[in-house]
Amino acid sequence: MLDDLYEEMVNIRRYLHQYPELSFQEVETAKFIADYHRKLGLEVREGVGGRGVVAKLKGNKHGKTVALRADFDALPIQEERDVPYKSKNDGVMHACGHDGHTATLLSLAKAFVQIKEDLAGTIVFIHQHAEELTPGGAIAMIEDGCLEGVDVIFGTHLWATEPYGEILYREGPLMAAADSFNITILGEGGHGAQPHLTKDSIVIASQLVQAIQQIVSRRINPLDSAVVSIGSFVSENAFNVIADQASLQGTVRTFNEEVRGNIEKELEKIIEGTCLSHQCDYQFSYNRGYPSVVNHKEETEHIKSIAKMVPEVTKVCETEPSMGGEDFAYYLEHVKGCFFFTGAQDPNWDVTYPHHHPKFSIDERAMLIASKTLGAATLCFLKDENQKA
Amino acid sequence: MLDDLYEEMVNIRRYLHQYPELSFQEVETAKFIADYHRKLGLEVREGVGGRGVVAKLKGNKHGKTVALRADFDALPIQEERDVPYKSKNDGVMHACGHDGHTATLLSLAKAFVQIKEDLAGTIVFIHQHAEELTPGGAIAMIEDGCLEGVDVIFGTHLWATEPYGEILYREGPLMAAADSFNITILGEGGHGAQPHLTKDSIVIASQLVQAIQQIVSRRINPLDSAVVSIGSFVSENAFNVIADQASLQGTVRTFNEEVRGNIEKELEKIIEGTCLSHQCDYQFSYNRGYPSVVNHKEETEHIKSIAKMVPEVTKVCETEPSMGGEDFAYYLEHVKGCFFFTGAQDPNWDVTYPHHHPKFSIDERAMLIASKTLGAATLCFLKDENQKA
Amino acid sequence: MLDDLYEEMVNIRRYLHQYPELSFQEVETAKFIADYHRKLGLEVREGVGGRGVVAKLKGNKHGKTVALRADFDALPIQEERDVPYKSKNDGVMHACGHDGHTATLLSLAKAFVQIKEDLAGTIVFIHQHAEELTPGGAIAMIEDGCLEGVDVIFGTHLWATEPYGEILYREGPLMAAADSFNITILGEGGHGAQPHLTKDSIVIASQLVQAIQQIVSRRINPLDSAVVSIGSFVSENAFNVIADQASLQGTVRTFNEEVRGNIEKELEKIIEGTCLSHQCDYQFSYNRGYPSVVNHKEETEHIKSIAKMVPEVTKVCETEPSMGGEDFAYYLEHVKGCFFFTGAQDPNWDVTYPHHHPKFSIDERAMLIASKTLGAATLCFLKDENQKA
Amino acid sequence: MLDDLYEEMVNIRRYLHQYPELSFQEVETAKFIADYHRKLGLEVREGVGGRGVVAKLKGNKHGKTVALRADFDALPIQEERDVPYKSKNDGVMHACGHDGHTATLLSLAKAFVQIKEDLAGTIVFIHQHAEELTPGGAIAMIEDGCLEGVDVIFGTHLWATEPYGEILYREGPLMAAADSFNITILGEGGHGAQPHLTKDSIVIASQLVQAIQQIVSRRINPLDSAVVSIGSFVSENAFNVIADQASLQGTVRTFNEEVRGNIEKELEKIIEGTCLSHQCDYQFSYNRGYPSVVNHKEETEHIKSIAKMVPEVTKVCETEPSMGGEDFAYYLEHVKGCFFFTGAQDPNWDVTYPHHHPKFSIDERAMLIASKTLGAATLCFLKDENQKA
Repeated sequence: MLDDLYEEMVNIRRYLHQYPELSFQEVETAKFIADYHRKLGLEVREGVGGRGVVAKLKGNKHGKTVALRADFDALPIQEERDVPYKSKNDGVMHACGHDGHTATLLSLAKAFVQIKEDLAGTIVFIHQHAEELTPGGAIAMIEDGCLEGVDVIFGTHLWATEPYGEILYREGPLMAAADSFNITILGEGGHGAQPHLTKDSIVIASQLVQAIQQIVSRRINPLDSAVVSIGSFVSENAFNVIADQASLQGTVRTFNEEVRGNIEKELEKIIEGTCLSHQCDYQFSYNRGYPSVVNHKEETEHIKSIAKMVPEVTKVCETEPSMGGEDFAYYLEHVKGCFFFTGAQDPNWDVTYPHHHPKFSIDERAMLIASKTLGAATLCFLKDENQKA
Repeated sequence: MLDDLYEEMVNIRRYLHQYPELSFQEVETAKFIADYHRKLGLEVREGVGGRGVVAKLKGNKHGKTVALRADFDALPIQEERDVPYKSKNDGVMHACGHDGHTATLLSLAKAFVQIKEDLAGTIVFIHQHAEELTPGGAIAMIEDGCLEGVDVIFGTHLWATEPYGEILYREGPLMAAADSFNITILGEGGHGAQPHLTKDSIVIASQLVQAIQQIVSRRINPLDSAVVSIGSFVSENAFNVIADQASLQGTVRTFNEEVRGNIEKELEKIIEGTCLSHQCDYQFSYNRGYPSVVNHKEETEHIKSIAKMVPEVTKVCETEPSMGGEDFAYYLEHVKGCFFFTGAQDPNWDVTYPHHHPKFSIDERAMLIASKTLGAATLCFLKDENQKA
Repeated sequence: MLDDLYEEMVNIRRYLHQYPELSFQEVETAKFIADYHRKLGLEVREGVGGRGVVAKLKGNKHGKTVALRADFDALPIQEERDVPYKSKNDGVMHACGHDGHTATLLSLAKAFVQIKEDLAGTIVFIHQHAEELTPGGAIAMIEDGCLEGVDVIFGTHLWATEPYGEILYREGPLMAAADSFNITILGEGGHGAQPHLTKDSIVIASQLVQAIQQIVSRRINPLDSAVVSIGSFVSENAFNVIADQASLQGTVRTFNEEVRGNIEKELEKIIEGTCLSHQCDYQFSYNRGYPSVVNHKEETEHIKSIAKMVPEVTKVCETEPSMGGEDFAYYLEHVKGCFFFTGAQDPNWDVTYPHHHPKFSIDERAMLIASKTLGAATLCFLKDENQKA
Repeated sequence: MLDDLYEEMVNIRRYLHQYPELSFQEVETAKFIADYHRKLGLEVREGVGGRGVVAKLKGNKHGKTVALRADFDALPIQEERDVPYKSKNDGVMHACGHDGHTATLLSLAKAFVQIKEDLAGTIVFIHQHAEELTPGGAIAMIEDGCLEGVDVIFGTHLWATEPYGEILYREGPLMAAADSFNITILGEGGHGAQPHLTKDSIVIASQLVQAIQQIVSRRINPLDSAVVSIGSFVSENAFNVIADQASLQGTVRTFNEEVRGNIEKELEKIIEGTCLSHQCDYQFSYNRGYPSVVNHKEETEHIKSIAKMVPEVTKVCETEPSMGGEDFAYYLEHVKGCFFFTGAQDPNWDVTYPHHHPKFSIDERAMLIASKTLGAATLCFLKDENQKA
C-alpha cells in the first residue's frame, strides 16, 4: 500500500521543502497538515500547544491507542544546493529532514484510512512544531493533551549520516540532554602593573576552566557519559590592563537526570568556591535544554523485531547514543515508546553533509522505510495487545 | 634669573599646549624649538634621529659636557578641560606634561646664555620627539649622535600626582621596562559534545594562564620586582562548540635586563611545554618596550643634594619605582645621569587626574623648580668637575 | 545429577578453604585438583604454564571442544570469621571465592563423566593458578597450550555482593583493564626562600595532577568509560625547603584497547610537556595489568538463555561493567566465550563484605547454580553445534 | 685596646665552641658569661626571660643608654671539622657563630671597663639565649625588662659567606619574617576506579598548590618581596585507591607586617574556597616565626659611617635583604637601632660552608672588626647625644 503512496510522499516532502517555516512560526505548514488530514476524514485539532496539529483515526474495532509523531519546523539556514525543490523562503531551510518526517506521517495516515475497517484501536498523528528551538513544541502539546488516552508512541528521525537501508535503535538513552550555561566572573579591573589592587578576572576564569575538568574526571560515575565544554571565553581588553570581567559560555551533555542534576550542582559549587578564594562575585545561569531521549525496553524490542521484517531494511543495529538533543524525550517521560533512526544517507552526492548543514540532503526512499516501519510497528502493537486482551 | 623668565616659561608652555602634535609627527613643535634656540645664538641641529632637535651652548671656558633632555610629543587624547590655552588640535593633547618639559628647557637655555662668559663647559639641550610611542625617539637620536661628547645627562618629568614642592629621586631602577606579548593557541575546534576529536584551545589557554603565574611566584628572585599580566583572553564562539583558537595579550614589567630576559624565555618555555602536552601549535611574539630607567648612583646623589638647595623645594625624598616606562632609559645606558620626578600636582582642581587623562593638568610653578634643579645640577656638575681637573 | 553432588561440592570447597595457597605458590591445591580429575579417569596435565592443571574429558561421540575455567589461588589476608572450616594457613585466605570456583568445576567433571557415553565433543577443565597477581596464570597457561583445540570457553565468578539466585551477564566489556603507573618528577631542590634557584617538584607534580584530569574530561570519547586516578603523591621534606623530587602512583581503568593505549600515550605527552615547561626530567613507567574482559555476543546470548532455564535461577539480568580486573580476559582474546557473575550473597550475615575482605563469605548454594549453568551451557553448546554440523 | 684583647677573644670563642649548648638549655654558657661580667665588676642579672644574662656598665658621666646584643645558643648539629677546639658535646655545635658573638661582646665589656671614667652614659650587654628556636629568647628577655632605659641597640652577625673586611648594612628590612604553615585536606577516600564516590584529596591539594602561586603573582605588590613555598606534600597510599587526606607544609617569607598578614589571610581564603568547591574540610595552622629585622634609618647611617672608620674594614656596602630570620627583630620593634653583618668568610678552607652546616667555620679576625665597630658605634653615639644635650 505504502509503495503506491511513495510518489505522493515525495511530492509532499518536496512541497514542504520549498516552503520551510521557522520554529514557532509554522503557520502554512500547520495548515497544510491539518487540511490533508481533514481531507482523509480524520478528526483534527489545530493549534495544539501553539502550532501543533493532532489528527486522530479511530479504527472500527476496539483497541489500544498508538501515537506517531513527526516534527515540521525548519532552520534559519540558507540552502546551498540547487535542487528543483529548493527552499523558496530566504534564509530558511528544512536542513534536518522534518519535511520528510511530515510526508512520512501524512502518507501513513492515508494508508491507515484504507484499512480503517479492520483497525482494532486508535491512531493519533502528532504533528509537532518547534523541535529545533527550546523550549520546543512537545512540552506544550503534551500539556495541551496530545497524549491523552495514548498507550504507546513511536517516532523516527531520518538520519542522513547513516546508509539507506539501516534502522538504528537503542534501548535506554538514545540522545543526550543538551543544556547550556553562562558564567560571568565579576572581578576588579586595574592597571596591568598593579595586580595587587585588582581581582584578575582572567586568572579566576582560567582557574575555573581547569577546575571544571574535574566534574567529568572525578565527580561523575565513569560508567555514565557526560560532557562539560566551555565554548566561549571572552575578556577583551588592552594588553596592559587587568580585566574586571570574564564571560564563559558552555554546554553540558548527559544521558540521565541524576547525572544532569549533579553536574549543575557541581558547576555552581566550583564557581562558588573559586570566587570565594578570590573574594569576587559571579553570575551563573544554567539553562536546561531537552532531557535525554530514553527509549523503553519492550517498545525498543518491538521496533527492532518489526524493522527486521521490512523488506527494504538491510540492517537493524544498535547505535551508540547521540550527543544531540530531541524533545521527543518529553513524550517518553509520559508514555512508553521508542524513537529510532532511519538511515537516509543521500547516494547522489560524494560528500555527506551533516544535519543543519546548508548542503544537507536525504535519500527520499528512506521515507518509505520509515513509514513501513512505523506502520508495521503500529499494526503489530494493536494486534498483540488485542490478543492479550 | 630663572624667576624672571617664569612668565615666558608659562607662555611657551601654554602656546605648545594649544598646538600639540602626535609622536613622530611633531613638525611645528620641532621648528618652534629650533627657532627659539637659534635666536638665542645656539648651535642647532634639526631632524636628529627623525624629528629631534639638539642645541649646543659652548661656555667660554673649557670643561665637561652636560646634556639636558626634554621630550615634546603629545597624545591622541581629546582634552576635556576648558582652559584658555586648551588644545586646538582635535583629538591631540599634551596630557603628559611634555609642553612643560620643553618650556623648562628653553627658558633654561635662555638663562645659561646670559652666563655664557663664565660657563666652564658645554651644555647640550636634547629636545626629543616621540617619547610616547615605541620605539621612541631616544634610540634614534642617540644613533644620530646626540650624546657625542656628553659626560652626563639629566632630565625630569613633571609629576602631576605628587605635590608641588617635592623632588622625587631614586638610585637604580626608577621606571620599569614595559613589554607586551601576544599568544595564540592553535588548537582544533569541533562540536562541544565531542571533545576527544578536538584540541580545546580554551582549556589549553586557561592552563597556560595558570602556569604563567609560576613565573613570578617561582622563577624570579623574590628580591626582584616583576609583573606578568594577561590583559586579554579572547575565544569567542557559540556555547556548544569547542574553540579552535584562543588569543592572549599581556604585559611584562621588570626593573633589570636579566629578569626581563628570563621572563621572556620562561614564557616561551611554558607555552612550548603546554602546547606539547596538547600536541598543538602556537604563535608567540614578545615585544620589548623601553628598558628600565636605571639611575646612576653618584648622579642621583648629585640631584638629591642640589634639590635640597632649591628654595621652592620643600621635600626631597626617595620614591618607590614606577611601573611605567620612559625612553630616557636609553640615554642612561650610554652615559651616566639621573632622571627624577618634579611634583606638579595642580591645586586648582579638587580631583587629581593621572597622566594620560583627558583632564590632566599641572601646577605650572613646578616648571620653575624643574628648571632651577636642572640648572643648578648642571652648573654644580661643571664646577665640581672643573675643580677635580 | 549435580544436586546429588552438592554435598561433595561443599566439602571440597570447605577443604580448600582451610588450606589456601598464595598466587604462584599453589602446590597442594594443584595436586589436589589433579588427583581428583585423575581419579575420575580424565586425561590430566599438571604444571601447565607454571602451576596450572588441565584435565580433558573426551566424549564418546565426535564434536566440538568446550573449555571451562576455574581459578584456585588465594589472597594474603587473615581470615576474621569463626567458621568451622576457617583457613588454617596464617595470613592466607580464600577471600575471593576461588575455592568455590574449583569445587564447582570438579563436581561438574564428576557429573560429565557419568554422561560420557552420550557426550558429543570434548570438555577441557582449565584450573588456573595465580589470578590475583599480575601477570597472572592465564597468559602462561595459554602459551603452554591450554586452549589448543578449544572452540569456546565459559567461566563464572561467584559474586558475593549480588543476591543468590541471580545470574549477571554482559555482552562486550564486563570487567575493566586495570593498569598502574609511576611518575617521578626530577626537579631541583633548594631553600624554600629561594624558589628561583630551584625547580619546584611539588608545583610541577601538582600541575601534572591537574592536567591529567583533562585526559578523561577532554581526550576520551564521552561514550567510553575510563578512569585515571592518582592514588599516591609523596614529596616529604622539611617545611622550609623546595622539593627536588615528587613521586606519583596511579591507576588507569578502561574497557577497550584503543582507549587504553590512548591514555598511556596522553599521559606521557602531558608529563613530557609539563616537564618541558619546567625544563626538568622525569621517570615514567606504565604497567599494563589484565586487559578488559570482553564477552562475545553469541556466547553471552547463549549463557543468558541457558541461565533462564536453571531452576534455582530467579533473575537473569544485564550488569553494569565492573571496574575490577580478571585475567579471564586473555582466554577471550583467543577463543570465543563468556564470563559471567553468579550471585552468591551470604544470607547468614547481616552485613555483606566485599571480595578481598577478611570477613568475606559466600552462599555455597550459588556453586550449584554456577555448576548447573556452566554444565547446561556446555551441553547445549555441544548439542547445537552438532545439529549445525 | 681591643687589639690587645684579641687573643683572649679567640680563647673565649674557642672555649665556648667546645661546650655548645642547645637553645633554651644554655646552663653553663650563661654561667660563664655572668661570671665574666661579674669579674669585670659589672652589674649582672641572670635568668632574664629564661636563660638570658644582662650586664650593665654605668659610665661615670651622665648620658644615654646603649644596648649591645649577642646570642649564645648552639645548634643540634654534629661538627665535622677536626679543629683543636672541636665541639665536645656530641651532636651539638656552634654552627652559626654565636660563640664569636659572645666573645666579641665580653671583650668589648672588658675594654669599656677600662674607659669607664670617661664614659658618658650606660652600656647594657644583652646576652641572649635561644635565638635558633622559635619563640626565641629575645621576646622573653624584653618582657623581663632587658630594654628598660635603653635608647638604642646595636648588634651584628658574623657572616661566614661574605669576605673578611666587609661590613654589610641595610636600612629598613634586613632579614625576613619566616613563618610556617600546615594544611591538611580532609577529603574522602575510596577505590581508584570510583572517583565519584570520593573527594580526591590529591586532586584538591594539587589544585591548592597551583592556586597558592597566585598569592605572590597577583595579590602582593610587585614592589614588595614575598615567598610562599610548599616544601612537603604527602599523601602516601596504594596506587589504586583515592586518598582521603593530603598534608602540605610550607613557609612564608616577608619583609613587612602588612604583606605578612595579607598572605596569611589570602592563604586561608584560597584553602577555604578550594575546599568549598569540593565540599570537603581542611585543617590549617599558620605559625608565625620571627618578624622581619627592620633597621632604623639614622642608626643604620650611624653604623655605616662608623664602619668606614674601622681600620680593618675594607668595604662598607649595602646588602640585599636576607630571607633568613633573626629575633633581633623584636628589639628593633621596641627601640631604635641597627643590626648588621660582619664579613667572616674563613680563608683557611677552599670551600665556604653556609651557616648551619656541619663544616661551618669563621675567620676569627672578624670578631675584632665586629667589636671595634660596635664599640665605636657605642662611644660615638654617646658622644653625639651628649653634644646635642
